[in-house]
Amino acid sequence: MSTHVYKKIEIVGTSTKSIEDAADNAIQRASKTINNLRWFEISETRGDIEDGKVAHWQVTLKIGFTLEE
Amino acid sequence: MSTHVYKKIEIVGTSTKSIEDAADNAIQRASKTINNLRWFEISETRGDIEDGKVAHWQVTLKIGFTLEE
Amino acid sequence: MSTHVYKKIEIVGTSTKSIEDAADNAIQRASKTINNLRWFEISETRGDIEDGKVAHWQVTLKIGFTLEE
Amino acid sequence: MSTHVYKKIEIVGTSTKSIEDAADNAIQRASKTINNLRWFEISETRGDIEDGKVAHWQVTLKIGFTLEE
Amino acid sequence: MSTHVYKKIEIVGTSTKSIEDAADNAIQRASKTINNLRWFEISETRGDIEDGKVAHWQVTLKIGFTLEE
Amino acid sequence: MSTHVYKKIEIVGTSTKSIEDAADNAIQRASKTINNLRWFEISETRGDIEDGKVAHWQVTLKIGFTLEE
Amino acid sequence: MSTHVYKKIEIVGTSTKSIEDAADNAIQRASKTINNLRWFEISETRGDIEDGKVAHWQVTLKIGFTLEE
Amino acid sequence: MSTHVYKKIEIVGTSTKSIEDAADNAIQRASKTINNLRWFEISETRGDIEDGKVAHWQVTLKIGFTLEE
Amino acid sequence: MSTHVYKKIEIVGTSTKSIEDAADNAIQRASKTINNLRWFEISETRGDIEDGKVAHWQVTLKIGFTLEE
Amino acid sequence: MSTHVYKKIEIVGTSTKSIEDAADNAIQRASKTINNLRWFEISETRGDIEDGKVAHWQVTLKIGFTLEE
Amino acid sequence: MSTHVYKKIEIVGTSTKSIEDAADNAIQRASKTINNLRWFEISETRGDIEDGKVAHWQVTLKIGFTLEE
Amino acid sequence: MSTHVYKKIEIVGTSTKSIEDAADNAIQRASKTINNLRWFEISETRGDIEDGKVAHWQVTLKIGFTLEE
Repeated sequence: MSTHVYKKIEIVGTSTKSIEDAADNAIQRASKTINNLRWFEISETRGDIEDGKVAHWQVTLKIGFTLEE
Repeated sequence: MSTHVYKKIEIVGTSTKSIEDAADNAIQRASKTINNLRWFEISETRGDIEDGKVAHWQVTLKIGFTLEE
Repeated sequence: MSTHVYKKIEIVGTSTKSIEDAADNAIQRASKTINNLRWFEISETRGDIEDGKVAHWQVTLKIGFTLEE
Repeated sequence: MSTHVYKKIEIVGTSTKSIEDAADNAIQRASKTINNLRWFEISETRGDIEDGKVAHWQVTLKIGFTLEE
Repeated sequence: MSTHVYKKIEIVGTSTKSIEDAADNAIQRASKTINNLRWFEISETRGDIEDGKVAHWQVTLKIGFTLEE
Repeated sequence: MSTHVYKKIEIVGTSTKSIEDAADNAIQRASKTINNLRWFEISETRGDIEDGKVAHWQVTLKIGFTLEE
Repeated sequence: MSTHVYKKIEIVGTSTKSIEDAADNAIQRASKTINNLRWFEISETRGDIEDGKVAHWQVTLKIGFTLEE
Repeated sequence: MSTHVYKKIEIVGTSTKSIEDAADNAIQRASKTINNLRWFEISETRGDIEDGKVAHWQVTLKIGFTLEE
Repeated sequence: MSTHVYKKIEIVGTSTKSIEDAADNAIQRASKTINNLRWFEISETRGDIEDGKVAHWQVTLKIGFTLEE
Repeated sequence: MSTHVYKKIEIVGTSTKSIEDAADNAIQRASKTINNLRWFEISETRGDIEDGKVAHWQVTLKIGFTLEE
Repeated sequence: MSTHVYKKIEIVGTSTKSIEDAADNAIQRASKTINNLRWFEISETRGDIEDGKVAHWQVTLKIGFTLEE
Repeated sequence: MSTHVYKKIEIVGTSTKSIEDAADNAIQRASKTINNLRWFEISETRGDIEDGKVAHWQVTLKIGFTLEE
């Protein structure tokens, strides 16, 4: 890691399947408008329930990316 | 969300398969005796180990449900 | 649990597949040199991103094992 | 406070007006089925937004009450 | 909640009147440039003091909104 | 630990003697109405003071028990 | 803010009316004996309950003030 | 609890015997110069070791007392 | 501080020299595109190691700035 | 304390008697293989329950010791 | 450390130069009126920004000192 | 970062000069016996005071290194 500066944003991905899929959706959406995504940190995992089952996994990620100079 | 009142209970689900499956088991068990489950928040993920492998995933969830008036 | 003494170590497992697989890798590696692994607690879930996708899941675990007397 | 034993439950009150009103609603609802409510601790304050305005305040309280012997 | 992706931003609202008013000001300002605000979470409540009285309430909120696809 | 589901409740035990005694009182009281208590976690230790001495130790415990299927 | 040194003290204000009023009471009381109060941070909001209603709001504040040189 | 204002101070008591004794020592010392001590909260328990044994228990307490009007 | 609204962003500055220099780099980079930077809060200090020495200090800051009306 | 370097390890002591005894057991076991134990910090207190009573206290300690140069 | 009792106070030191200098200023100011300062713990590091540069480092310390018997 | 496994250890470095120097000392000492040190995270910054001045900075680091396969 050289002497770069990074920005961290907070994104909530959702999925009907799994925690990993919810995180993937968050990262994929972020990569549409931001280049140079570098790492992520999961800060919260929650979800909503319908008919006694998990309806959506909701995963909050901090995503870090390089700021261009 | 209208002006309801909700209660949160803390349940630990376990599974030999995955974190998601442990959470599903917790929610399924809770839905046997409680209607109107609305959301969950994972607060702890741990497990026990046997023979150098994960034996059970143990996932602690706070589960929220609507209190009837 | 009898009147044993346990030690906890902190291991980071990684995987290209899933959180569970990263945890399994950490536990498997620890079990190569330590007997009597007993339980684990996930304390952090993060990862690095390449080309707008999760490249590796990085899962930090505290792993507890029995100290022989 | 004599040598009693207390139980703490977690309730989410909501209100369109204020944080205090949301807490009052939670306590009022809890007092319908539980006697001897003694104290509360606010652990989370959040809400949902509609049309760029707070629609509901959602206040999570831990409420303590005396267990009868 | 469908399979959307959300972003959370952190805004500090201030008010001479109350915590609720400070939060309202933060949300109102955010809604000027962002559509689809969905929820908020208060993470910090502080203020400055002048002449032995609260001069301004300063309330930090995380505000979540839907990212368009 | 097999693939059970557990519930955690929060109880405050008090004692004029010691932290351990306050925890014992909480567990003993809980065991009057709940079978299958399995483990506890102390989350808070406090007390009230009278005449410059500890009057009561107040120990908050999360107590876990097996939910019958 | 020049190169001053500040001290922070912890005060609990109470009120039968509101969180804001409890904070005001804490600050007003502190200002009786300390000059140069500058800012406050709310660290805990709780209260006691009588007859199923909030009897007193109890708000813990850290209050910062300038130390004279 | 009437509409009083309270102050909380942080004291570290030590003891060669037990956690309770260390807390007692802290409270006893505080009561020498402050009247109206009301409650305490243990925030940290640590100690130093000599010759492979606990030499002193060091218990940090927040102690609350009534401010006279 | 008048009745403004502020936004907080999270930036990671890096430096081969010191924590202060890493923070300065983060703030300098942020000030290229944002006016009215007002304050910062360090939330994490870490770094990477090469050849048994600190290669880069990595300092995460929350930076607050005034939102224009 | 001179310009030494210290290492901290995490040990869980257990006891059927008390928190202090569980901590003593952890420190005594650690002192079998490590010289120069200097201090400890309790990070978690829990236990298991059998027949409605505490069966074992389980106390997690961070133990610090001097690294020889 | 003998069986003393200690008090901890919270001081914010500021400096235009560095974190260490801000801490030094806090300790130096505290030592003007208090003897027997023994240790400190940094709990927060922040600062204000002017013209896109750090104007003052603001470092919050808990400072412990021996209470005379 | 490939699919490696890492271990994290906790080391306290000390210095009479600065936080950075204390961290350097910790890392240098760790690198004497461990290869492949990769990163560190500062978890605590404290120190002891003599004659009203900082005598030693004490910086606690978690240090991560690659476990060989």
